[in-house]
Formats: sequence, C-alpha cells, structure tokens
Amino acid sequence: MDTDKRPIYPIQVWDITETEFDIKNNYRNETTFALSNGYIGTRGTFEEAYDFDIDTGLEGNFVNGFYESEKIRYGEANFGSPLLSQSLLNLPNLKETHVILADEKFDMMDGTVEEYERVLHMKEGILERKLIWTSPKGKKTRIQILRLVSFARKNIMLISYRVTPLNYSGEIQFVSKMQTDVENHTRKTNPIVDYGPFGRRLDPDKMWAKNNKMYYEGTTKGSQLTMACGSSHVLWKNNDLIKELSWQKDIEEMMAEISVSVECEQGTTVKLDKFICYSTALDMGKNELETFVNKELEAAETDGGLYLEKYQKEYMESFWKIADVEIKGNEAVQQGIHFNLYHIIQAAGRDGHTGMGAKGLSGEGYEGHYFWDTEMYVLPVLIYTEPEVAKKLLDYRYGTLDQARERARILGHMKGALYPWRTINGAEASTYYPLGTAQYHINADIAYALSLYLQVSGDVEYLKEKGAEILIETARVWADVGSFAECKDGRYCICDVTGPDEYNVLVDNNFYTNLMARENLRDAVGAVSYLNENAPEVLSRLEEKVDFSIEEIEMWNQIIEKMYFPYDEKRQIYPMDDGFMMRKPWDESKIPPEKRAWLYENYHPLFIMRHRMSKQADAILGMYLHSNLFTEEEIRRNYDFYQEVTLHHSSLSTCIFGIVACDIGYLDEAYKYFSQSARMDLDDYHNNFYAGIHAANMAGTWQAIVNGFAGVRCQDSKLRFKPVIPKEWEEYRFRIKRKGTLLEVTVSKQEARFKIIEGDRINFWIGEKNITLKCEGDQYVEKI
Amino acid sequence: MDTDKRPIYPIQVWDITETEFDIKNNYRNETTFALSNGYIGTRGTFEEAYDFDIDTGLEGNFVNGFYESEKIRYGEANFGSPLLSQSLLNLPNLKETHVILADEKFDMMDGTVEEYERVLHMKEGILERKLIWTSPKGKKTRIQILRLVSFARKNIMLISYRVTPLNYSGEIQFVSKMQTDVENHTRKTNPIVDYGPFGRRLDPDKMWAKNNKMYYEGTTKGSQLTMACGSSHVLWKNNDLIKELSWQKDIEEMMAEISVSVECEQGTTVKLDKFICYSTALDMGKNELETFVNKELEAAETDGGLYLEKYQKEYMESFWKIADVEIKGNEAVQQGIHFNLYHIIQAAGRDGHTGMGAKGLSGEGYEGHYFWDTEMYVLPVLIYTEPEVAKKLLDYRYGTLDQARERARILGHMKGALYPWRTINGAEASTYYPLGTAQYHINADIAYALSLYLQVSGDVEYLKEKGAEILIETARVWADVGSFAECKDGRYCICDVTGPDEYNVLVDNNFYTNLMARENLRDAVGAVSYLNENAPEVLSRLEEKVDFSIEEIEMWNQIIEKMYFPYDEKRQIYPMDDGFMMRKPWDESKIPPEKRAWLYENYHPLFIMRHRMSKQADAILGMYLHSNLFTEEEIRRNYDFYQEVTLHHSSLSTCIFGIVACDIGYLDEAYKYFSQSARMDLDDYHNNFYAGIHAANMAGTWQAIVNGFAGVRCQDSKLRFKPVIPKEWEEYRFRIKRKGTLLEVTVSKQEARFKIIEGDRINFWIGEKNITLKCEGDQYVEKI
Repeated sequence: MDTDKRPIYPIQVWDITETEFDIKNNYRNETTFALSNGYIGTRGTFEEAYDFDIDTGLEGNFVNGFYESEKIRYGEANFGSPLLSQSLLNLPNLKETHVILADEKFDMMDGTVEEYERVLHMKEGILERKLIWTSPKGKKTRIQILRLVSFARKNIMLISYRVTPLNYSGEIQFVSKMQTDVENHTRKTNPIVDYGPFGRRLDPDKMWAKNNKMYYEGTTKGSQLTMACGSSHVLWKNNDLIKELSWQKDIEEMMAEISVSVECEQGTTVKLDKFICYSTALDMGKNELETFVNKELEAAETDGGLYLEKYQKEYMESFWKIADVEIKGNEAVQQGIHFNLYHIIQAAGRDGHTGMGAKGLSGEGYEGHYFWDTEMYVLPVLIYTEPEVAKKLLDYRYGTLDQARERARILGHMKGALYPWRTINGAEASTYYPLGTAQYHINADIAYALSLYLQVSGDVEYLKEKGAEILIETARVWADVGSFAECKDGRYCICDVTGPDEYNVLVDNNFYTNLMARENLRDAVGAVSYLNENAPEVLSRLEEKVDFSIEEIEMWNQIIEKMYFPYDEKRQIYPMDDGFMMRKPWDESKIPPEKRAWLYENYHPLFIMRHRMSKQADAILGMYLHSNLFTEEEIRRNYDFYQEVTLHHSSLSTCIFGIVACDIGYLDEAYKYFSQSARMDLDDYHNNFYAGIHAANMAGTWQAIVNGFAGVRCQDSKLRFKPVIPKEWEEYRFRIKRKGTLLEVTVSKQEARFKIIEGDRINFWIGEKNITLKCEGDQYVEKI
Repeated sequence: MDTDKRPIYPIQVWDITETEFDIKNNYRNETTFALSNGYIGTRGTFEEAYDFDIDTGLEGNFVNGFYESEKIRYGEANFGSPLLSQSLLNLPNLKETHVILADEKFDMMDGTVEEYERVLHMKEGILERKLIWTSPKGKKTRIQILRLVSFARKNIMLISYRVTPLNYSGEIQFVSKMQTDVENHTRKTNPIVDYGPFGRRLDPDKMWAKNNKMYYEGTTKGSQLTMACGSSHVLWKNNDLIKELSWQKDIEEMMAEISVSVECEQGTTVKLDKFICYSTALDMGKNELETFVNKELEAAETDGGLYLEKYQKEYMESFWKIADVEIKGNEAVQQGIHFNLYHIIQAAGRDGHTGMGAKGLSGEGYEGHYFWDTEMYVLPVLIYTEPEVAKKLLDYRYGTLDQARERARILGHMKGALYPWRTINGAEASTYYPLGTAQYHINADIAYALSLYLQVSGDVEYLKEKGAEILIETARVWADVGSFAECKDGRYCICDVTGPDEYNVLVDNNFYTNLMARENLRDAVGAVSYLNENAPEVLSRLEEKVDFSIEEIEMWNQIIEKMYFPYDEKRQIYPMDDGFMMRKPWDESKIPPEKRAWLYENYHPLFIMRHRMSKQADAILGMYLHSNLFTEEEIRRNYDFYQEVTLHHSSLSTCIFGIVACDIGYLDEAYKYFSQSARMDLDDYHNNFYAGIHAANMAGTWQAIVNGFAGVRCQDSKLRFKPVIPKEWEEYRFRIKRKGTLLEVTVSKQEARFKIIEGDRINFWIGEKNITLKCEGDQYVEKI
C-alpha cells in the first residue's frame, strides 16, 4: 500500500475533477467516474467509445444480481466444492454515442480539446464532461455531456448530450449505438481464477431499432438468465423539443444503431437526451421484458431528462443531509469522505433481492461477489444513515436462507443455515474453501449486522417477520460445529475455521469467530425469549417452519457460558487462534519490497500461514464490535500486540485499527490509520482501483470517524458516545438515526454538541452520563 | 473395508488360479494377473483382446517413469501449485494375438471351453492360461499360453502361445497385432481428478511391419516424451524352429499386424514365441530408440523363449529364497503373503531413475504416482531382503534432489530440499496441497528409509556418495520450517503441516511429523559427524556443493533437544496434534453405512477435519518406527487410545496397528489386524483392486510378520528380535539380510531358531540378551 501518494485530482470537497484526458489514467478513472444506483452500474468510459486494450480500459455495464455461470474445474475436486461459477456479467453497452459536426466526427484524439473537464458532482449525483473541441478543419464546438444512473428509476440511465457550434452553422448528426458483442475481462480482473466467463456469453434473442428506440434481449449461455436493454432518444434545440425527426437505422448481427440529423445555427444548443434501460428476468417473466423496457423508456421520456436530473439532486440532497460527515480543517480528507460515501450509496442493492458486491457495480473485481464486507463494513453506515436501504440488504440475506440451509447440510449440519462466503445468487461461489467456506464467521457477521439494525432502528416488526429466523438458523450451526472439549476444561471449542484474517487459515478457536459465534447465539437466545414473551404466535410459526424447539436454547446457553477463547497468560492477550503464538516470527526484511503486498501471488500458502503475522484486523475487529465486553486495558494490550504483527494487506484493516486506537486513547495513531483509509481509493493506494472500488474500506472511513473519533456504539440497546477530535481538525459534524430520530453531533476542540434535527426523543450515554433529548432542536453540550 | 469375504481364488500357496472366465470379474482379475518387472507393466488382459467398456476392463501397458502432462486447471490457483500433471501413460498394446484354426478364430465367447485355468505361478514368475476349446464346427484344440515380463531383460515381455489340434489337422494362422490407439481411463480410475489424460496422447512418429517384426515410435502431446515398442515372432513345431515363413502384413493408421500360417497335424503342437519390447527416450537419445528396440528383440530371439522362462524361474527362486515367509498352519495366509510379495517385487523400479508407484505398474490408480508408500512400507521389506533393489529406489530419490531443492525454494526455504508428496518425474504433482505438499513428513520418511538401509546394510560408501547429501538437505528444511515457541517453553514447534493421517489436515505439531523430523535431524547430525571423522574430504565436497556449513549442526542439535510434542496429561498419551483432543467426537452411527469408507467422496473436508477421528496409523506409525524411544507402557496407552479413534480407511493402517499390537503383547489383536492386511488385495476387501494393487499394504504384511510377530527392529545400529507366534500358526520362518549375512529365523510354539544361511557373522539382541553367530550354519535357539 502506497500511502504517500500525492492527490490525483484537485482538492475540491464536493467534486472529483479530471482536468485532462490521458489514456494512461483511463482504466483507473473509469472506476473513479463509475456511476450506479445499486441496480445498474456503468463504468466511466466515454460516449465516443475509444479503443483500449485489456491493460488500459474496460467498458463495463452491469446489473446487480445478473451473473453468468461456467463449470468450474479443480485440480482435485472436494465434496461440496461449487460446480458452477457466478460472475457479474458485463452487459451490452448503450452509452456509445457519436456526434458528427458538419461531416467531422467528434474525437478527442483528433483536433484540439480546450477547457476540458470531467467532473463527478458528488453532491448532485451527476457526472459531467465539458470541453471545447476544434475540429481538424477548424470548427469550434462546445460540448457538454451529463450522465446519471437514476435513483428515481431503478432501470434507467440518462445521457444528456449538449452540442453548441461556436463558429459555424451546419448539420449535427447524432449516432447512437447498442454494442452487444461484449466480454468480461476475467483474466485481468481476477487473475488467480481459472475459469471464465470468456468470450461473449449472451446469445441474442431479439434485437430491433425503430424510430427513436432500440431494443435488445439476450440469454446467457451458462446461467440461462435473460436480460433486456433498450434506449430511446429525444432531441431539443434551445430547450424546445424537436418533433418529427427522421431516424435512420442500421442493424448488424451484434450491433444496432440509430442516427438523426438536425440543422444547428451558430450559438444554438442542440441537446440529445438518451434514456437507457436495463432489466432482467430475475425481476419478471422473460416474456414481460420487452413490454417493461418499452414502458420504462416511455415513462422516462415523459419525465424528461431535466426531471431525472432534478430528482437525482433531490435524492442526493436527502442522502447527504443525513449521511454527510463534515470536517473543518482538512479539505483533502473531506473530499475523500465524500468520495467514499458517494460510492457506497451508489453500490448498495436496494430492491431486497440483490446484495452489494465488494466492488459495488464499479468493475469486475472479485467476480462481482458479495462478501461479509456488506454486513461488517457497509451496513453499519447504512443502519445509522439509510436504514431502509440497510433493511433491503438484510432482506437479500433473508431471501437466500433456503440456500444457506442447503449449504449447511452439505457441510454436515443437520439443522441451521450456513451463509456462503462469496455469492451472487445465494449459493456458495468460493472455489478455495480454506479462504472461502471455512470462513464460517460470515454467519455471525450477518447476525451481527441484523442485530445492530434491530437495536439502532428499534424495528421489532422486522425481528418478527424475518430477523428471528435468521438469528435462529445461524445460531444452530454454531451449536453444531464445535464441541465441549474435556482437554479445555469442558469449554466450547470451534476447530478448523478461518477467521477474517486470510493469512491464518483453518485454525482452531479463532478468537474473532468464537466471540462472534457466542454473540450470535446470545442474540438468538434474546430473539427467542422476546418472541416467547411478546409474540408467541411468531415463535410457533417458526418452530414449525424450521423444526425448531425452544429446548435448543439450553444448549445455546451452555455454549454462551462456556465458549473457549485462546489466551496468552504471559502477555495477557488473546492470540488470534490456538496456534498463533507458536508460529514462526515474520521477518519482513526477507521479503523483496515488490512482493510485500502480494504474498499470495508470490508465496505458497503454507509459507504464509506458518508465520506469526496477520493480514488484517481480526481479533481487533471483534474487540471493536463488542468493545463493551472488554476493559480498556485489555483492549490496549491486545491492540499493542496486534499492531506489531498486522501487515494491513487487506483494505479492511486500517480503518478498524483506527477505531480501536480511538477507544484506547491513541489518538495520533488513530489519525494515522484513518489517513491511510480516507483517500485509499481516491488516490489509489493499492494500485488496483481499475478493478473496482474497495467498498468496505470506503464505509470503514465513515466508521472510523463516527465509531472511532466520536466513539459511537450501540450495544446492549444503549447508544454510547466517547467523542474526541484529532488535532489536525477544527471541527467535525455528522448525523445518525436512532429509532427514527435524527441526531446531529458536532465535535470541536472544546465540546461535543448533540442536537435533535428530526424526531422527538433520544437517549444516549457519554461515559457514565445518561442523556435524554426530548424534542426537535433540543441539544446537549459536553465539554471535552 | 469388507474383511469377511470368502476367498476369491482356490487356496493354493504358490498359485493364483482362475477356474473360469467370467466377464464380471474381468476388471479385478486384470490386476490380479498383472505382470511387471519394475519397468514394463502389463495388465492381465487376454491375447484375444475381448471388448469391454470402462466399467468392465482396462487394457493397460505401462513403462515405469513414462508419463503424460496436461495443464492443470484450478478453481483458484495458489502460488506453487503444479501447473502440469504427470500421469503414467497407457501405451500401445502389443499382446493382442489371434489364432485361426482352419478358418475358425479362437474366441472364448464362442464355441465351448473346457479345462480352463489361468494360473499365476508366483514361484516361477509366469502367467499361464490353458484350456481346450471346441470350435462351433467341432474342432477341438488344446491351447496353452505362457506370459512373462522378463526379469532378465528389462525391456522384454514374452508371450509363448502353444496350439495343439486334438481332433483335426489343418492350417493354423497366427495374427499378431500392435494397437496404438490407446487411452487412459482417467475418470474411472481417478474420479476426483479433473484433468486428463483424455483421448489418445501419443502422436505416431514411425510405424512399420517387416517380416516377423513390427515397430512403433510415438511422442506424447504434452510431456513431449518419446517411447518405442516392437515385437518379433518365432514359430516352432514340436520344438523345431520353423524357418522360411511367409509373413503377411497390414498397416493402418493406428494399428499394424503381421500374420503367418503353418500346416499342423492332429496332435502336433505349434508354438509362437512373441517377444515384445518397450523403451523410451528417458533412457537414451530419441534417435537411438529404433536401433535399440531391434537389438533387444534380436537378443531376446537369440535367447529364445525357453531361456527367458528359465531365467525367470531362476530369478524368482533366488528372490523367494530370501524373501519368502513360510507359514505352517495357515495356507490362506501363506497364499496371501506370496501374492503380496510377488506383486511387490514386480512393482519396484530398479534402474536407479524410476521409483515405485503406490499401485506399482498394475493400473492407472493415483495416476501412477510415487508416494511415501515406497519408503515407509516397501523399502523396509527390500532393505532386509533385496538391498540392491532398495538402493536403486533410494538412487531415484537422490537423482531428484535438484527438483526437491527447487521445491523447497518455492515453499520459502532458502536452504535444503523438500521432496514432493506425489510425483513421477521428481517435481511435485499434488494439486491439493492440504493433502499434498503439506505432508512435509515425506522428507523425514525418505531420510528414515535411507537410514534404515544404511544401518541394515552397513553400506558406508552409500552414505558418502549419496546418503549424507540427502540427510543434510532434508534436515535443513526441518530446521527452517518451525520455530522455538516462547509459549511452549521455547520448544520447537512445526505448524501447518499434514501428517500421514489424511483426515486431520493442516495441523500444528503433528506428533508423527515432529518425531520423524527430529530423527531426520539426528540422522543428519550423525552423518555429518561420521564424515567429519572418517571422510572429511566428502564433507568438504558437500559443504561446497550445497553451501553447507558444519555450524548448522548447532541449530539442529538445539531442535533435537527441544522438539515439542503434544501431550495429554490426563490420558498420558500423545495426541496426533495440538488440536486433536478438542475436535468433535465422531459418531459413526450418523454416517450411512454405504458412505462410511468414502468420507471424502461424501462429506466436505471441513466436516471430516473437525471430528476427532483418524483415517489411519499416524502417531502409532511413529511409535512403531522409533519404538526404542518409548516405553512399552507408553506405547500401550497410545495404542489403546488410537485404536478407539482410528477408522482404518487407508490400506496403510491395519498392518501398522498389528505390528504395534505385537510390541505390547496384544497378540490376538495383532493377529486380527494382520488378517485384515494379509489377503486385502487378493480378496479385494476395498472393492477397488481393479484400479491397481495396494503396494504399501502388501509390503506391510511382510512387516506385520517380520517386524510384528518376530519383533525385528534395527535401531541405534542394533538388530533386535522379540519373537512371538500367533496361536493360529504352528510355525513361521523367514530370512533377513544384515550387512551381507543371511539369517534364517524359525519361530514355533516352543522356540525361535536363528541360523546363518549365508555369510559369516551376525550380532543381534533378544531382550537384554546379545547374541553373536559366527559362521554359516551357526545357530541359536531361544525358548518362547
């Protein structure tokens, strides 16, 4: 990780601006300027569709949840290894648009470009490109292109293309294309994965162009899923709709285009609004797709481009109103935070049957899979700021419980559900179980996020409707996977799992796993007790549905009481697992610098795992999440130990160390870690941003401020603060939602101010002080 | 494992007889009647080349060390995963021979067969088939076919085909074929392996037929290795050579044949001697192959079939003279022992650059790979009985030291050599490292076998020439892989290895591994000390060759002193590894009977490894090999513990338990285990004999008698006996070689008799008694 990089883009708190077009930055910038609404994702490629090769660019258009499958081949297959892959599929590209300005085609590689700017307006949720182009023959044209993926209309993306001839009048021709001959990059983006998708994976079912519309429908070769897309086009001249246009069309086997020309006088602006729609048979019957896409396009046309822009701004305004973290005294960090939050809100699936990829919908990295990143890193942010979106992501997990139950059976558990380590469709997609299925902690991670949601939101209905079932089913696997070991005084041991730390594989009694498992069980006991008292009919329904008996709780309580944790008496710390302290000391000096961050690419797994070092926060993450169960002194000892042995080779690490450093009063270290997280992607510290965002770290920076500097926790149903401020800042401010009430927290050098912005009552703790605010505007100030 | 099976073949101590031809037994019997000389292996298929499908038969002809490679695909590849497979390749079949008896082709599926017998004459090393066939038209013919793979001539196999018309005279035509369109079975024999070889892998370079000879030369598509084969034919009538025969030929793209006819009078015997030769470019330049094969065929012709038969018998006679174990009172076991020893001596590579496959050369199982089976199971037998062959197998390991050094670097060891878990060409071929490369104990296993060879043979020259280098290089990996762990009182811990037990994977401090590693280091220290005193010039050469410094020994000695072993205080036993006692108790009753022996085929690896059970002898094997380091009481406690948790799902297990049971006076149990081993393959207890022999268990039965019942050990340079006799036997007798002296040991109910058969001096111990015999015929009797 290269954290000494200079800022790539100008420091502007609300914008990311590219000031010149340079092909060598193209691949990375495609991710920077990627747009998404949690359903459609599109990379920041240009409408002109410049040529690039596999090392310089990737045209990418994705629909959340839409994947291709291939048969996976293994050297030697294991029972229960997934047989079919799930890869987020790169879909037809409808962005491509060419403008011919009186016989000269706009092309930034040709002629001259002035006043170039590409700006991601994070406040508004809109990507804008503007420039003045002088053609080889000397015609000067102002070009402005807005692009948005609509938060108003799940299926719609808009490109609003404005052209103004500055020193000539003439015919302006727009050519709009639909390129269906697309392929995933695969090898480039997932180099260790030895299966496809390779080549074109969609077989066309339908394709047509008619007047101002184009339509395509295709079915994947492997997963046999059908997707549909289309575009429709409207032209304006100086804000007047141009009617009765004469559209030309051209259809080839894998491409369709329509074109239209208008006369345009010098100084006049012609605007093309291009509405693009994507949908898939995951949302409806295959035979309904064509009608649906047409209806959506017509509806978008009726709304109009300006309305879509307006709604986009409104949506983002309401998002920022709650989610924004304002920092006075450090614009670079402020920009980084905005960038991170912007990509997070873009990436989250919100229709209840899609999740959120570790790379969002910004690229093909990790095959587009959903991991624990969603629950442990992203959901806490959404739970406090966008609880409705958080709930939809939990819905996705609820919706895949049946597959998790099936998976548990494959792993030999006769009861319960085991969530997949990697997935899109709910089935396990990890092909290397030591770093995949062995990460049983995913079960407890999901249960944790669910419990946090329930605590913060107070949404009891969700517990009854879905939450309790998830808690019970995940708990049952914990009650089966381990055993009370005589050699450990009858304590409950869990063997042969992999914790979050991917450099310590198939270990016994991973501290994080045992801790999270215990709390998963505790939450399940709590849920069952609650239902027993308050909603016995729900409990009865569950008992029947999942063949659950309340007697199982006895065993759960025993495990809770007797859970084993590895402990080093001399150091008085919790080793990551039973074997950690025995491992060979790590000697970084023996690793050539260029290999240091890429251990699995350069060293055998056995070499990595036999060393005493850690890739990322593991035990420390557990101590953050359940900080109420440890003394500060205990956390400090463990932190001191782990910061010596942690390499932070995962983007999920530094933000957590930063939070825990706050907890124990190591403010300078906390700020150092925070700084390594805040602009990690914006300045491409890992040199792999081209493959997609690191969503977990992006969310982690919000946590580093809110849970770290402000010390926010919601544990045992208590909301708690412990605010501090880094010396580098003058003030910071954020808002969180708790049971419907919106609280604003402003921390300056002198004080922390708590104020109800919306809602009527909130109770929280600062240290031993219990504070209640009672109405909108009510506030409390704590000196610090 | 089904150990209650009735004997498949009649009980005959020296013969295995098939009394009728039944296609349903064909696949298994092809292994039973497989022949080999350690170089050529051929399955027991018939000359008539009956049709069978992938479930009923496999024509197989192999050359030791000759393999095909394919690119291996992995779900996710790890650094250091082998990229190319090594599969023993199924080669062109030259056995096919048809006889046309006055226009009627001999075919056992047609006409009637009487007096049918196929007999493996184990005493002579010859396979014989004899029968009387009555053709559909009523012609009666006596047919006798001898087959042998020559111990005299490494490259030669002989088929001697005798035909005697009993009730007619007429023309007898022999048609001899060379079928080159052959394929491996692959899927059937290695079901969990997801790569080839698929289809025909040899591309023909040359093929011709001329007079009484045929020749073929081909090169593999993947490994680019060239092999050659040919046959030549001689006919006799009533022991007179028939000269001036008129040979016809027919050559197709993938097949050649020659044929010849002779007139034959009723009662006269016509004999075809067919000499078959295989060679490969592993032994010589590709351009020398054709000349070589022709010369070998001519030499074999000159010898003649009768000479080859005679030599075969002589070879086997001298083999049995030393290796035979004679048992009075149990013919079934006697037959089983002969069968096992016969297949062992067939299977061992003996040219110094080939090893011995776990399946010998009897089938395609395990891709023909060499494992630790050779060193831990087979070599001890050969060391005591055929030390020259044992040395050749050690030569193979010495010859692949460079590849083992390379492999050590890949595993992150800057010094030393790490032998591959599976291989043919010396490079690692295991594609699933938890059950492959993680079995570091292979290094110590090879060092153990080498040390045993050195101790038993007293071959100091071998130590100087090759042995010391192997001991030093293997030891260096042990000195690097672990570390002195503060949390274990500074003892030396070895983490993340897999021991012999394949149900307990990637564990810390596997007892067997730590023990064997320590002894590997001790032997290396011993070797270096010996050289330092007795052959300093050899040590100097080694220091230079492998950049070794005598100072490394300090560290080795520290490790020897401080090696850590897991210990359960309460039970006073050595658990298999640090985590074993914490694992979930195994409940066999939850496993459906049909899945019990096939856990990896029916359960996820995580399910298997989280349970407290063991596939096979592991700690117990270590206690057998180094029994001098443990008290009898200690061994008994461990045996009692392990026999409760061991499932014996490996064919390598029961023989070892039997030996240790003897050690601790559990004679009845020892006999029970021995019985499960003695006829395991002959009666096909595992129901997979079709895929090839279980060489390790076959050798293990010899060990169960010699090292078990007779208690033979050679430890600390002392030869020791502790003879007992199972109540089921009247007497047993065997011979072992020690420093060139051949000792015969006869154990009856009353006494054990020790007698020098060849050689002039031997010293051994019985309990505390030290006995020296001083000349041929000298004997000692111990009452028991």
